[in-house]
Amino acid sequence: MGKVCFVLGAGAGIGGHVAKRFASDGYHAVLCRRSDEAGLSALVGEIQEAGGQASGYLLNAAEADTIEARIASTERDIGPIDTVIYNLGAQIGDRALADTSYKAFEMGWRLATFGLFRVASAVLPAMVARGQGNLIVTSATAAVRGNSGQHSHAAAMGGRRMLCQTLNAEFASQGIHVAHVIIDGAVDAPDTLGKMLGPERFARLRETRGMEHDGLILPEKIAETYYHLAQQHRSAWTFELDMRAFTDRSWWNH
Amino acid sequence: MGKVCFVLGAGAGIGGHVAKRFASDGYHAVLCRRSDEAGLSALVGEIQEAGGQASGYLLNAAEADTIEARIASTERDIGPIDTVIYNLGAQIGDRALADTSYKAFEMGWRLATFGLFRVASAVLPAMVARGQGNLIVTSATAAVRGNSGQHSHAAAMGGRRMLCQTLNAEFASQGIHVAHVIIDGAVDAPDTLGKMLGPERFARLRETRGMEHDGLILPEKIAETYYHLAQQHRSAWTFELDMRAFTDRSWWNH
Amino acid sequence: MGKVCFVLGAGAGIGGHVAKRFASDGYHAVLCRRSDEAGLSALVGEIQEAGGQASGYLLNAAEADTIEARIASTERDIGPIDTVIYNLGAQIGDRALADTSYKAFEMGWRLATFGLFRVASAVLPAMVARGQGNLIVTSATAAVRGNSGQHSHAAAMGGRRMLCQTLNAEFASQGIHVAHVIIDGAVDAPDTLGKMLGPERFARLRETRGMEHDGLILPEKIAETYYHLAQQHRSAWTFELDMRAFTDRSWWNH
Amino acid sequence: MGKVCFVLGAGAGIGGHVAKRFASDGYHAVLCRRSDEAGLSALVGEIQEAGGQASGYLLNAAEADTIEARIASTERDIGPIDTVIYNLGAQIGDRALADTSYKAFEMGWRLATFGLFRVASAVLPAMVARGQGNLIVTSATAAVRGNSGQHSHAAAMGGRRMLCQTLNAEFASQGIHVAHVIIDGAVDAPDTLGKMLGPERFARLRETRGMEHDGLILPEKIAETYYHLAQQHRSAWTFELDMRAFTDRSWWNH
Repeated sequence: MGKVCFVLGAGAGIGGHVAKRFASDGYHAVLCRRSDEAGLSALVGEIQEAGGQASGYLLNAAEADTIEARIASTERDIGPIDTVIYNLGAQIGDRALADTSYKAFEMGWRLATFGLFRVASAVLPAMVARGQGNLIVTSATAAVRGNSGQHSHAAAMGGRRMLCQTLNAEFASQGIHVAHVIIDGAVDAPDTLGKMLGPERFARLRETRGMEHDGLILPEKIAETYYHLAQQHRSAWTFELDMRAFTDRSWWNH
Repeated sequence: MGKVCFVLGAGAGIGGHVAKRFASDGYHAVLCRRSDEAGLSALVGEIQEAGGQASGYLLNAAEADTIEARIASTERDIGPIDTVIYNLGAQIGDRALADTSYKAFEMGWRLATFGLFRVASAVLPAMVARGQGNLIVTSATAAVRGNSGQHSHAAAMGGRRMLCQTLNAEFASQGIHVAHVIIDGAVDAPDTLGKMLGPERFARLRETRGMEHDGLILPEKIAETYYHLAQQHRSAWTFELDMRAFTDRSWWNH
Repeated sequence: MGKVCFVLGAGAGIGGHVAKRFASDGYHAVLCRRSDEAGLSALVGEIQEAGGQASGYLLNAAEADTIEARIASTERDIGPIDTVIYNLGAQIGDRALADTSYKAFEMGWRLATFGLFRVASAVLPAMVARGQGNLIVTSATAAVRGNSGQHSHAAAMGGRRMLCQTLNAEFASQGIHVAHVIIDGAVDAPDTLGKMLGPERFARLRETRGMEHDGLILPEKIAETYYHLAQQHRSAWTFELDMRAFTDRSWWNH
Repeated sequence: MGKVCFVLGAGAGIGGHVAKRFASDGYHAVLCRRSDEAGLSALVGEIQEAGGQASGYLLNAAEADTIEARIASTERDIGPIDTVIYNLGAQIGDRALADTSYKAFEMGWRLATFGLFRVASAVLPAMVARGQGNLIVTSATAAVRGNSGQHSHAAAMGGRRMLCQTLNAEFASQGIHVAHVIIDGAVDAPDTLGKMLGPERFARLRETRGMEHDGLILPEKIAETYYHLAQQHRSAWTFELDMRAFTDRSWWNH
């Protein structure tokens, strides 16, 4: 059995492209996403047609035991998980405090913070037993600064970042590489940005800022860096890095 | 009716001393804590004997509607809340990931992050209507770095810090002063540190590091800075500051 | 002999107001500035008329031995320096890299970083011998993020912040309180902002954003917090805090 | 003419290995270092024997016009500089403030901060004219926290980090990729760590922590990440990342 790359949040953006990148180098890519069975099958099919190995599963990370069961069955039926890509987001757009329900606030935590804790609890014991493994976490600007209207998202992402640090502090010396990647800009992703903006605005944005102009982050380029992180030698591991398009301002600049 | 200072987490450490400090300058101090009715009565009594105004309530912040109801009744029966001190902690000591249950992880979030969101949702509309108010949040080193064994605490505090930033971003220009205070060291507090260590170890620690040696942070001195924050002119507000004993190393130093 | 508060950079903004604040509580204020003897005399006179003690000196901090000699003569002739306010700025406005000369870059460092190193080297041995002292350093947003056009200023302030941390790491346990204050907004100061904008634009800005609207930071309010820092008990010292007007965005927000 | 990778600080550690890595993929490596002509020749020879292109120069970065002249002659005689590796350090070991001379403090700035400013001023106009280029800067833990005894080093590195941010803010949108790499641990480098420790202690350290145990950062592994940074697509650039051995604690952890 070869190495497995387990992707939670495998849509048409970062998650799907990371799955393809790892599969292109021999990993068996396990793609999990909440909905859109057709989109999932298409991704799996693409990888297989290119000669790679992939499996796809629908999985609701907000429900109990879904993540845990899928990790267990992957380890049992497909192979030892070498790399987990935690790519679940919790961005719901800007909302004033008065428009942010308790439920929305809790859902942010459940997907962005607690879900990662569940993944770590489920997969790290096996990785530790094998003395190696990668846990690469997609994160966002909201993990390092709380902007107006981001109550749910920033609280969830701030928690996620600190959790990544505690996981790294406990597990790095046991051979587990935890990496926290701050995606500091809009990603050219139809499943997330596309849905938030709607098809017309998304198409316009891609034309004006994306593609030739490189003003949107291309997810296949992010995938190259995720792959690099997973290949770093353990004497020279990166815990945190940021990524943005060259035309974008860094989060700390005005 | 005078100004009200509403303290959530009013034990014998920071919370109680802050309540006393505000009461000594004419605020009506509302002290809320989960348990120890005798301790609560003693604090209230102390303030009243010194000529101040105080009310005390037992309140379980992990339960639904407890915080919201107490804020509403305070505004209705005691007076407009000028300052909220959010002083609920979620430190459970260092625990390996394997020893951190889902329940413990969730409880950290519920007390340290979600509770603050509930307070903000309940109290800020009234403060905004009055064009002023202070929300001073006790925080911890774990809000800025995740150490080994701090999975629950760091995730909760990291979320708290980002939430404070989002609240500040939305409400500062409406006259609300949000302050995030990083308590970066052990506080001379029998209710928290004392319970964690047990009476003997706590007594020994106080003798060797505390008192004359000032190696523990004295909560009455923290209270002076909280009071200063609440008095800062709105042209010169502080959002974040750190506090530690002069003998302690800053969190970023080795 | 009473306590001395030694202010380097004592113009009509932060420095002058801090000097007044300390003098109003019995400190002998020593005011040093590069130029404008009339302005300096006026400040000293104001303090003395209010019943306080003050001395004023012109001092070019870019020249060798000027700072060191003034500290030595102050200790010898006026009294032991309890508090140093390091208030020298190095803001020269936004300049593209091509418009930033080697000389301008070096001058930024000389005033904002090296000057502080010289002050620390000159004054800390005496403070350590007395077991106490405060070194309060005015800093700027540029100490924590480098914006376009701020090459000289940001490099100088970034160095200043790290220098403050090293001083704190070595001297806190010896009783010296080092504080790094991030002034994150425009200060209502005729000597600095006023000169940069010119009298007309400065007057307009004050009318639209300052005074009633509190959109400029009032230096006399900053002075209150500097004074509070100098009075903090050594069991509860603050190393870093930020300050801005309530209408201003924090540096990390967009 | 192929692409040129210009390495300032090309010793037997990071600089030399980065030069080799770029040369192995077709870059002409220009190696500059202050001293040890024999060591320099050996590095250049190694690259050439492996089929790569390399040139070596002795260069004292503390002297006027040395950097500028070498950049100009490289552009003129060897080819357009695609990537600059700024790898000059300024670590002089831990020294108390009293043992840190003005000269040592200034030298830290001159090598670690001002040198980078000179490089940027000299090379960026040509890169901007070509619409592309990489400026990869080796940095250190001291850029993000000032430890006791690091007065010169931390001030210099803190300035360097902010300068990198200002360069990025001005030049990213013009196609220049600035990257600030925080080397957060000891590097297995005879020229720097080896000299600081002496041959015996360095040999012992390598045996106990390095090699099989990966407790020292292997510079050839750092080189892989530098190379990856230079290859990142401009829609997905990283400005900052940290690196350390898996057995090392992150700078923010205790």
